[in-house]
Amino acid sequence: MPATPEIERLISLLAKLPGLGPRSARRAALNLLKRRDQLLIPLAAAMQDAGAKVRACSVCGALDTADPCSTCRDPARDASLICVVEEVGALWAMERAGAFSGRYHVLGGLLSALDGVGPEALRIGELVGRARDEGVREVILALPATVDGQTTAHYVAERLASAGVAVTSLARGVPVGGELDWLDDGTIAQAVRARRPA
Amino acid sequence: MPATPEIERLISLLAKLPGLGPRSARRAALNLLKRRDQLLIPLAAAMQDAGAKVRACSVCGALDTADPCSTCRDPARDASLICVVEEVGALWAMERAGAFSGRYHVLGGLLSALDGVGPEALRIGELVGRARDEGVREVILALPATVDGQTTAHYVAERLASAGVAVTSLARGVPVGGELDWLDDGTIAQAVRARRPA
Repeated sequence: MPATPEIERLISLLAKLPGLGPRSARRAALNLLKRRDQLLIPLAAAMQDAGAKVRACSVCGALDTADPCSTCRDPARDASLICVVEEVGALWAMERAGAFSGRYHVLGGLLSALDGVGPEALRIGELVGRARDEGVREVILALPATVDGQTTAHYVAERLASAGVAVTSLARGVPVGGELDWLDDGTIAQAVRARRPA
Repeated sequence: MPATPEIERLISLLAKLPGLGPRSARRAALNLLKRRDQLLIPLAAAMQDAGAKVRACSVCGALDTADPCSTCRDPARDASLICVVEEVGALWAMERAGAFSGRYHVLGGLLSALDGVGPEALRIGELVGRARDEGVREVILALPATVDGQTTAHYVAERLASAGVAVTSLARGVPVGGELDWLDDGTIAQAVRARRPA
C-alpha cells in the first residue's frame, strides 16, 4: 500500500465531497499535505470552527451562527413575504441576485417518490405555520423547474391554500443572454404561453 | 451577504483545493455543513491527524508517518534500484501498478524555465548522494513525457553521470488498450523507433 492509514482516511473522506472522485480526492490530499501550513491546518481549523458555530435557523432553516438567523431578525426585510427554496444553496443564489428583500423558508429537499422523500421529511408543516402566524401576505415558491421541484411546488401550494396567503412561483421563460437557437423546446413553449406586452 | 464569515472562510479555503472552483467549493461547504457529524467533523479530525503525523521521508521524500519511510526501511525491496519521480502522486501510481520493487526518490517538482524552478529547488543533490553512497546499481527516471519532464530527465542523467550507475527511462510507446487511430503522431513515431521483435 503506497499511503499510510492516515492518508488513506483523508482521501476516502475527501472523496465524499461533491465534485471530488477517488482520483481527484487523492490529488487534493497530496496538495493538502504539501501545503500543510498554508492550507491543511487552516482548512481543518475553519471546518471545526464552522462545525462548532454554524447552525440551521430554527425559523427559516438557513445556516447562521445566530438563531434566529440574521435574515429572520433583520427589521429592514419584509416579513410579509416568504420565499420557499429547496436548499441553502438556492437561498444564497437568491441573495446574490439581490432581487428579493423578504424572508426565506428552506424546505431541506424536494418530494421524491423515487428517493422515498415524503412531506414529513421536509419543513412543510413549519412553512404552513409561518404562513398562518406572522401576518404573511405572499409565499413565493422558488423551487427548481424539474419534475420533483414542480411536484413539491404543487403540494406546498395545496397545503398553503388554507392559510389565506397568495402563493406565486418564479416566472419561466428565456434566460438573460439566452439564444432561442440553444434553448430547449419546453422553455420556448413556456415563454410563448407566458408572453407579455413589449 | 448570504453566508457568515465562518462559512465564507470555509468556502475560500476549499476553493484552493485542486479540482474545486468557487462554485463547487460552495457546494462542498454546504454539503459538509449538512453532513456535520458524518463528514465535517471526521474530515477535520482526519486532516489534523494527517497534518500532525505525516511527514516527508528524509531519504526519498515520500509521505509517511515514519522517517525513514516504510519503503526505505523495507528489507524486501531492492536497495540497488532507485526510481525517480516528480511527486508523491507519481510514486503512488507506480506502487499501484506493482511493477517496481526498488526504492524511490521524489524530486519535488520539475525544472521549469517558465515557472522559474531551478535545480536547487529540487532534491537532485540528495539523489546524486544516494546514487554514490548506497551501492546503487541503476536509477530509473520515471518523469513525465512533457517538455519540462524531459528537460529534467536530461539534467538529472547528466548529474548522475559521475556516480557510476546505469541511468534508464521508462519505455515510450503505445499504451495498453491504445488504438492507433486515437494516438498522437509523436507517440506513434516513438513506438515505431523503439519497435521490438514480436
